[in-house]
Amino acid sequence: MRYTLGCHLAYEVEAETVFIFNLEAARLTRHHDLRETFRLDPDLPVRRHVAPETGNRYVAVTVPPGRFSLDYEAEVTLDPLRADPSGIVETPVKDLPLDILPYLLPSRFVSSDRLTPFAQAEFGDVAPGFERVNRICNWIHDHIAYVRGASDEETTADETLLKRAGVCRDFAHLGAAFCRALGIPARFVSCYAYGLVPCDFHAVFEAYLDGRWWLFDATRQANLDGLVRIGVGRDAAEIAFSTPFGEMTATAMEIRIERADGAPETGERTVAAISTAEDGPDAEGGLR
Amino acid sequence: MRYTLGCHLAYEVEAETVFIFNLEAARLTRHHDLRETFRLDPDLPVRRHVAPETGNRYVAVTVPPGRFSLDYEAEVTLDPLRADPSGIVETPVKDLPLDILPYLLPSRFVSSDRLTPFAQAEFGDVAPGFERVNRICNWIHDHIAYVRGASDEETTADETLLKRAGVCRDFAHLGAAFCRALGIPARFVSCYAYGLVPCDFHAVFEAYLDGRWWLFDATRQANLDGLVRIGVGRDAAEIAFSTPFGEMTATAMEIRIERADGAPETGERTVAAISTAEDGPDAEGGLR
Amino acid sequence: MRYTLGCHLAYEVEAETVFIFNLEAARLTRHHDLRETFRLDPDLPVRRHVAPETGNRYVAVTVPPGRFSLDYEAEVTLDPLRADPSGIVETPVKDLPLDILPYLLPSRFVSSDRLTPFAQAEFGDVAPGFERVNRICNWIHDHIAYVRGASDEETTADETLLKRAGVCRDFAHLGAAFCRALGIPARFVSCYAYGLVPCDFHAVFEAYLDGRWWLFDATRQANLDGLVRIGVGRDAAEIAFSTPFGEMTATAMEIRIERADGAPETGERTVAAISTAEDGPDAEGGLR
Amino acid sequence: MRYTLGCHLAYEVEAETVFIFNLEAARLTRHHDLRETFRLDPDLPVRRHVAPETGNRYVAVTVPPGRFSLDYEAEVTLDPLRADPSGIVETPVKDLPLDILPYLLPSRFVSSDRLTPFAQAEFGDVAPGFERVNRICNWIHDHIAYVRGASDEETTADETLLKRAGVCRDFAHLGAAFCRALGIPARFVSCYAYGLVPCDFHAVFEAYLDGRWWLFDATRQANLDGLVRIGVGRDAAEIAFSTPFGEMTATAMEIRIERADGAPETGERTVAAISTAEDGPDAEGGLR
Repeated sequence: MRYTLGCHLAYEVEAETVFIFNLEAARLTRHHDLRETFRLDPDLPVRRHVAPETGNRYVAVTVPPGRFSLDYEAEVTLDPLRADPSGIVETPVKDLPLDILPYLLPSRFVSSDRLTPFAQAEFGDVAPGFERVNRICNWIHDHIAYVRGASDEETTADETLLKRAGVCRDFAHLGAAFCRALGIPARFVSCYAYGLVPCDFHAVFEAYLDGRWWLFDATRQANLDGLVRIGVGRDAAEIAFSTPFGEMTATAMEIRIERADGAPETGERTVAAISTAEDGPDAEGGLR
Repeated sequence: MRYTLGCHLAYEVEAETVFIFNLEAARLTRHHDLRETFRLDPDLPVRRHVAPETGNRYVAVTVPPGRFSLDYEAEVTLDPLRADPSGIVETPVKDLPLDILPYLLPSRFVSSDRLTPFAQAEFGDVAPGFERVNRICNWIHDHIAYVRGASDEETTADETLLKRAGVCRDFAHLGAAFCRALGIPARFVSCYAYGLVPCDFHAVFEAYLDGRWWLFDATRQANLDGLVRIGVGRDAAEIAFSTPFGEMTATAMEIRIERADGAPETGERTVAAISTAEDGPDAEGGLR
Repeated sequence: MRYTLGCHLAYEVEAETVFIFNLEAARLTRHHDLRETFRLDPDLPVRRHVAPETGNRYVAVTVPPGRFSLDYEAEVTLDPLRADPSGIVETPVKDLPLDILPYLLPSRFVSSDRLTPFAQAEFGDVAPGFERVNRICNWIHDHIAYVRGASDEETTADETLLKRAGVCRDFAHLGAAFCRALGIPARFVSCYAYGLVPCDFHAVFEAYLDGRWWLFDATRQANLDGLVRIGVGRDAAEIAFSTPFGEMTATAMEIRIERADGAPETGERTVAAISTAEDGPDAEGGLR
Repeated sequence: MRYTLGCHLAYEVEAETVFIFNLEAARLTRHHDLRETFRLDPDLPVRRHVAPETGNRYVAVTVPPGRFSLDYEAEVTLDPLRADPSGIVETPVKDLPLDILPYLLPSRFVSSDRLTPFAQAEFGDVAPGFERVNRICNWIHDHIAYVRGASDEETTADETLLKRAGVCRDFAHLGAAFCRALGIPARFVSCYAYGLVPCDFHAVFEAYLDGRWWLFDATRQANLDGLVRIGVGRDAAEIAFSTPFGEMTATAMEIRIERADGAPETGERTVAAISTAEDGPDAEGGLR
């Protein structure tokens, strides 16, 4: 399926601010024919960096005081791998590629060490495999309310569990935390999400099962078939769409993704396992 | 200066355990003529991984129930870069290499986001540069007591600040947290530390200043001249000397580092700025 | 039923220490014929205080350096009120005696405010009444493991929920927290507990329902019929059996409770609702 | 000095709500000639309770859906005890009245147990006495910024210390926490505060020194000479001006206190130690 997507961000910069943006569609084998434009107003020079281990695309720009805006537009054909969930097993720790180790460890917002007893008690006896991660998502969906404003940028997975409320970022952190606590590598994914209402940058998580990263969305708000990856990381800190250093105020933020053929969203949700990650034992090897 | 160093670790493994070790001396340009032996008893097959972005050397081994031990012995000539601290300035965020970004972000134990107000209030007005990080170390040394058992493996930098006590791991986390909170990239460093009494794996931190990573030890217990790096990472989680998955009990742990010529430690501490990190704008570029 | 009970505590006092003890059986209408001896060695002068709002019996003693021990022995006939749980309703907040208000509020270890979303989600839809509190106890019993050493003296109810483990103190804090979060007054109770193995000071909680305080033990380890109350309070801080100010080391601690007629414990557990609290709209009015 | 004071509170009640108010001036020996009116609109029946151990005046009212407002007006002559701070010593724990024990213990927001190392390190070597508590207030004033919105109703003293910001409630919690951590009883005080700009319910704390409760205001925003006490308690939870159970929205809130003779506030601050608490070894004995 081909999608058009993009965002418009505007800021009032009060004092020189360095922005590090991470909002462009990832260059993946399964992101076919990516065409894009990236414009800044004023048209300031940028520095670009693609993280070798993840493919995350960072753009840095130093902005003087005044109005500043960014427009990103892209078109991409998404060719996700679809698989039968029932055949997807967990990879034992002893068989995990060692470059995946960081995704087993606790990170700032994915406090998997604090959640280990909880995860073991709730999911320790569930049969390993794709379905166990699905059970984690169901549990989160049933126990955590999606409430705008319920969390802030310092909220950790254990806090979300107590508050029983959060937004997509929190659902993804909690899902990843439960996975890591069970010995399943998991990482945070930022994306454009077709079908999300209202449209916004979305966050889901990937679990590493059977030699591949698979997408999971505990919010159940978007179609896994329509997620265009921006970045992956240990947690939200690593792939914020905008990390500003300075003084500024956001004045506008619009995100969009539509089918390129203009067809309406049907609300149908896939039951297949979905992956857009690169192939290979070294999960992102294709990027290097 | 040439050092001999090594460790002996022994375990009683109760159920099959995957160990991921990170305890070998790093292969750095400034670690000359590194000679080493790594033996397991029983002599099990290992998998090795060198993380491309850090040079961290991971060894994984799957151990069946029973006794298990590891002996690592190495000899290395340490050739640290020495510099006059007074000439070392802070690198503005706008000039930072973008692959250093992760070391500005909060991580599990380096809760720099929670410590930003504290760091700004205590150190925000100090003139930028090497001396500011030195002031951070002095502050930690003066305000935090070195107390064995004061912390555990879940202790974060903000908790250490409240408890006013910790071990080397906590001093390094707090130092790194204050730096990141001020916009100075900082990372956790594990090492063999000549002069540390009693000898143990040591933890210090590095701050990125003036285009290079510099070593800092807020415990003031070891000589910066005699630190043989093992690994670097966001915090202790990433570079534990041993990350076990399974059931086992540690039964022995001996760490040692001595001058290869047998000369005694003098207790003298360098006043120069010290770095053993790789050269280049891409800090670890030499490793790739 | 008549019980003999008591404790022996011994300390090595390193520097003058003020002890505040709260370990004598409460003087309640339903504690018939209480006979007791309280001896200190050396025989130091004490100050006594009975808190008017709770009846808690505090004994303060200032102890010079050296050995110090306390022996308390008592005999009491316990005459609990037994009632059919099915007839016990919740008292609406609008009908609560106002002196009970403190037991609706969060306290240091009963962090009911942090647990309100969790309590509402798990128990908000359960029909009000004794059975709802029983459900809370069942939930805790099913979800929290009784593990010695799992907590320390700073552990709060929300931490226990995450750790999924604790001791009687933690079970009581969590039960009280869930109750308060639902608008049910609850307080922490310290007691001698007939049938507890091994014998120790025990902690349970009381919920205020239908105009009276009723006993609940989420550990299910003791018989509600055999609880001899020591003190009640907001949480463990208020009624520690010993609050020392100074420097000392505990060297012995023995607690006992037996049937006065020497009959063995049967292991049978009552299914009735049990209360030993005073009558009256002002719950402890009989004490004044 | 004679003051007129009062408040106007208005609510839109969406579902039946029980309000428990604690906003009337305390009836103290040093509050002379207190004249007051308390009106509700609609004029609903109230229940009143004066807590025997504190004199706190609680008013409960059950309000049906609709508009609801409360008007309290009072006139009182404040006759504080003034003393020379230099003569006020700390009362050793062994000489403290035992009914003061609760004010040495940690409570929900006064997390003195978590702050003990910090308090000991900063103030443990300061000479005991009134001046030590004054030093605590100076430290808080110098290190914590007064920032509206910096905290919420779950903020604890240790969090305020990390955030380096708060409002009067947080300043009082932190001051009380440092005191308790040093063995000085301290309690939270709500009051009308002459000279506070803008006028609001104010929070300060009292420390028990030399046999009496003395007022301290770490915000330095109000004159200790002009504080009309409403209530005292372990922390803010116990004496919220309004504790609602139900569904409602606050629509108006006006607080005022002026000199009855209309004289303007001079901005002068007393240098004397000030107390309005009751006399006697039992601190609030005069209330019973």
